Amino acid sequence: MNHHVLIIGSIALDDIKTPWHEERGLLGGSAVYGSIAASMFAPVDIVGVVGEDFPAEHLEMLRAHGVDTSGVERRAGQTFRWGGEYRQNMNDRDTHFTELGVFAEFDPRIPEPWRDSGFVFLANIDPELQLRVLEQVRQPRLVLLDTMNLWINLKRDALIEVIKRVDAILINEDEALMLFQTHSLPEAADRLLELGVSRAIIKKGSHGAQMFSADSTFAVPALPLRKVNDPTGAGDTFAGGVIGYLAAGGTLDESSFRQAIMVGSACASFVVEDFSTRRLAALTPGQIQERCDRLHDAICCERVVMPERVPVPGKR
Amino acid sequence: MNHHVLIIGSIALDDIKTPWHEERGLLGGSAVYGSIAASMFAPVDIVGVVGEDFPAEHLEMLRAHGVDTSGVERRAGQTFRWGGEYRQNMNDRDTHFTELGVFAEFDPRIPEPWRDSGFVFLANIDPELQLRVLEQVRQPRLVLLDTMNLWINLKRDALIEVIKRVDAILINEDEALMLFQTHSLPEAADRLLELGVSRAIIKKGSHGAQMFSADSTFAVPALPLRKVNDPTGAGDTFAGGVIGYLAAGGTLDESSFRQAIMVGSACASFVVEDFSTRRLAALTPGQIQERCDRLHDAICCERVVMPERVPVPGKR
Repeated sequence: MNHHVLIIGSIALDDIKTPWHEERGLLGGSAVYGSIAASMFAPVDIVGVVGEDFPAEHLEMLRAHGVDTSGVERRAGQTFRWGGEYRQNMNDRDTHFTELGVFAEFDPRIPEPWRDSGFVFLANIDPELQLRVLEQVRQPRLVLLDTMNLWINLKRDALIEVIKRVDAILINEDEALMLFQTHSLPEAADRLLELGVSRAIIKKGSHGAQMFSADSTFAVPALPLRKVNDPTGAGDTFAGGVIGYLAAGGTLDESSFRQAIMVGSACASFVVEDFSTRRLAALTPGQIQERCDRLHDAICCERVVMPERVPVPGKR
Repeated sequence: MNHHVLIIGSIALDDIKTPWHEERGLLGGSAVYGSIAASMFAPVDIVGVVGEDFPAEHLEMLRAHGVDTSGVERRAGQTFRWGGEYRQNMNDRDTHFTELGVFAEFDPRIPEPWRDSGFVFLANIDPELQLRVLEQVRQPRLVLLDTMNLWINLKRDALIEVIKRVDAILINEDEALMLFQTHSLPEAADRLLELGVSRAIIKKGSHGAQMFSADSTFAVPALPLRKVNDPTGAGDTFAGGVIGYLAAGGTLDESSFRQAIMVGSACASFVVEDFSTRRLAALTPGQIQERCDRLHDAICCERVVMPERVPVPGKR
């Protein structure tokens, strides 16, 4: 059971609007995107809650990806619903509504056999719920945390508590800066490491991602995307790819994390091509490999050697 | 003469204000930063204009770096002066004043022996002046162009003409987007390549730099800087490092350009540590090598190989 990935987060129905297109009632949620991505590499167990209105076909799709959905509770009421609109630059978005529905009463219960999961992804939800998950799992090899600006504003103390108890955090650049009231990303990364995480992985949207650890940093660009149709779930997908790849490989050294970040970036580069989970659900290992190769080519460089000849002996 | 770097641009006296410090009458200008950086690698010939108020010690400093200053015209009047203030994030800045002085009448004359320079850096000045330089040089191996938002707004047609005639362009991300009225950097890069440049090198400030060519892209992060005291001249320094390194090596293939971008990034990471050219002028090859090594370590990654085992045979 130890190479299983346990994922706890939101399962949602989204209304998404972009400058070019609009769709309603789409499958969404941090745990959903994360699970599909992770399932490309390792067996996934998902914990979450849905309402009576949640289409059974979505859970069937997850199961077809090898995701164990027996931890998804179905309760009387409405599934968590979110509506948002992307601006022209497709980076900034405005939330139109958030209807918690059955999520308001969500109290995550990790099924007994899953409490020994080796890999745990705390996808973006209320940090108080994330803390309750941490109380239930036993000695996981890796706990990866994701969060968002909402929790920094509303529940900063609980969030700090969660950060102190996890191994790695994934966070958007602007949110990392907001969390520590700084303009310096290296400073924000330092503060995260001081709280106890071994790795702070900063998501930079169209600028890619950057990982900070005590003695090194690693950066990957975003693949140049000519077709961004719906950025929703890109961060969750990134995280799912990272933890799935690490669970499959089983090693947690710097090199593995770097490769995992390439994999997460590659997965995220697909999900934005279509609305909801459509592109992600149709993804093949060969397609991920191809984008990882392109990413590798985009950062590959021979070591620089200073030229021997220095033109003027003067000052240097 | 063919491995010489010819640099044409502004020579200025700057008043710089940051949230923490303020200094007046500092040595500045695109050609100055570019020349000092390039001089670390290759002999540099600088063309520009100064007024009667320009301190002789600045030209002596350039000469001590192996920069031939015989193309710097001294005219009656005041040196070009710029005053600016950086905001809290140290990325955005407001211009307080621009006094052209003797620069208003500047008509670049390239001394006859310099017209055969192998490497030409058109540092940031009026694109109409850049066109006049291009009329004077004979078959350089590489012409590198830099520009700024001012010229996109005031002289877009002339700027497009220059772009059509150069081999490579360096441009800030927001300026590239502004130039083509798009939100997509890959699209802006495509448009630059369509105009005829072989390489579009996009400067992204604290997000590093990304090079686009017809069949590949290459990205380097910015080194995590804990000490940014004055960002002025970072782009010019970057460019100087790029063209100096290319001139020293003599090869212009993809690999050389990638290494040159590492060198330019390393040089730029120093210049921001102190006001004006102070840190840059004191730089040693060993210090540049050390930061290039750190940059290399920050992008170094083994190729990802998809795990053999796919957990569920279902869809994949």
